[in-house]
Amino acid sequence: MTALSSYLEEKRLAVEAALRSALPPAEGPAARLHEAMTYSLMAGGKRIRPILAIAAAESCGADAARVMPAACALEFIHTYSLVHDDLPCMDNDDLRRGRPTNHKVYGETMALLAGDGLLTHAFRLIADNGHVPGVPAGAVAEVLAVVADAAGPTGMVGGQAADWLAEGRETGEAEVVYIHTHKTGAMIRASVLVGAILAGAPESRRAALASYGEKLGLLFQIVDDCLNVEGDAARLGKATGSDAAHKKATFPAVAGLPAAKARADALVAEARGALGTLNGHGGMLADLAEFVRRRES
Amino acid sequence: MTALSSYLEEKRLAVEAALRSALPPAEGPAARLHEAMTYSLMAGGKRIRPILAIAAAESCGADAARVMPAACALEFIHTYSLVHDDLPCMDNDDLRRGRPTNHKVYGETMALLAGDGLLTHAFRLIADNGHVPGVPAGAVAEVLAVVADAAGPTGMVGGQAADWLAEGRETGEAEVVYIHTHKTGAMIRASVLVGAILAGAPESRRAALASYGEKLGLLFQIVDDCLNVEGDAARLGKATGSDAAHKKATFPAVAGLPAAKARADALVAEARGALGTLNGHGGMLADLAEFVRRRES
Repeated sequence: MTALSSYLEEKRLAVEAALRSALPPAEGPAARLHEAMTYSLMAGGKRIRPILAIAAAESCGADAARVMPAACALEFIHTYSLVHDDLPCMDNDDLRRGRPTNHKVYGETMALLAGDGLLTHAFRLIADNGHVPGVPAGAVAEVLAVVADAAGPTGMVGGQAADWLAEGRETGEAEVVYIHTHKTGAMIRASVLVGAILAGAPESRRAALASYGEKLGLLFQIVDDCLNVEGDAARLGKATGSDAAHKKATFPAVAGLPAAKARADALVAEARGALGTLNGHGGMLADLAEFVRRRES
Repeated sequence: MTALSSYLEEKRLAVEAALRSALPPAEGPAARLHEAMTYSLMAGGKRIRPILAIAAAESCGADAARVMPAACALEFIHTYSLVHDDLPCMDNDDLRRGRPTNHKVYGETMALLAGDGLLTHAFRLIADNGHVPGVPAGAVAEVLAVVADAAGPTGMVGGQAADWLAEGRETGEAEVVYIHTHKTGAMIRASVLVGAILAGAPESRRAALASYGEKLGLLFQIVDDCLNVEGDAARLGKATGSDAAHKKATFPAVAGLPAAKARADALVAEARGALGTLNGHGGMLADLAEFVRRRES
């Protein structure tokens, strides 16, 4: 086991435990909502966004505990986006991580509400992070602005809308970059930045980490696109080839698979380069960029 | 024109202007998302929640400007809840405020995303309120926790889930109170509390206003229920009788219309009573309780 893979496993387990206790209490008449939220939140996954926040905080000298509530918030938001994405009016997917999607189990109404609940409760967790010792005054408001911008109409939701509006028609590379940087990139960048803010990192370090996060975010989505073309469905836990079938705006579609892979390789180098100014403290983050490039699910 | 009606009109206009400028910029490929968000946000309405936040802040000696971004956030959240509520998988309503519902105009996908975008951007506006002069340090994190709890699985979303799960079967008064206090009451209470927090009100005044907000919230939903039974569809801008048709859990359904109205009258008195300790500074809030009782739309 490499240093990175044992690091990822250790952090993933810590995040899983924190996620479970971050869920709001299961209340009487709405207990099934809680069940639906838990179903998707605890469905596994690599927990990349929380781990990025933790690794970024650690690269700035703070520990995982400093950022754990906000790290969980990032995963709540990611999960909500998957639940809403899978709905019949969006991608209408039956499988996610090898299991029936939320609406297949709980019905459309409960899946819609579970997504709404996960998104809203994420912001409660950001407020909670203000009570963690060592968090600088004002950091909660800063994190709140960064996360809301990355998740909302100027970020992920904007990217999803653009993606939907582009489906089935010709798109150029500029539009694909817009969709990718908004739909996926913004929250990846925010994850890194949240770690830096809660660690109290100075502006220059934040800027370096934000630049790293931007490269990583685009890399992440391009790798996703490539996996949809030639990945292993069993390993991915979802069908492949769906982007092409839906004429989705993707990098392989506009530039071809070899060019998409070359772009991914270049982004790994750029992401590592952005960490250059961190004087050796970005080690795990550099390895994470390689990991995102090589992932098979 | 009474003092209250001219107050409501003045504040409503101020809120409308602030809402319009609170919308995120209309970006290129996602411009239609912006359009869909604007369609529902600027569809009129009484803007009761923002006005409650403003009136509560004023009752604590602050002015409207102190709370305006968060007041807008409350209306963004209210609007998102209406857009998602109207979706085919929820109430499947065609009309809202006399106009076609969001999904009738923009389609289900865009309506889903417009709701997600409105909800998420609301939290950005709460962060923005931290920059308003006079806002106490730490108030943003407090407001964030109050609003997220009131809107999320322990509040509005939980109430919506319970409402959905109760539909079509027998319910008792306790379950109806649960649904009402969560689905509508929580955000009404939060609106009042947000004004008090941002005004820097001491704990005793906050508690009095929270109690007022609780009574007002339940009152609000009982009046809504009664209007659905005997209101004027043209004035309401939506169909009446739908609760009975869907066997919704409502006060008139479990207790009868006369008892529901008597409960509403009692709640007005209780809400006014909760303001008793505010030494005359709650005047507009007391009148607001009467207004909510008497409203016809």
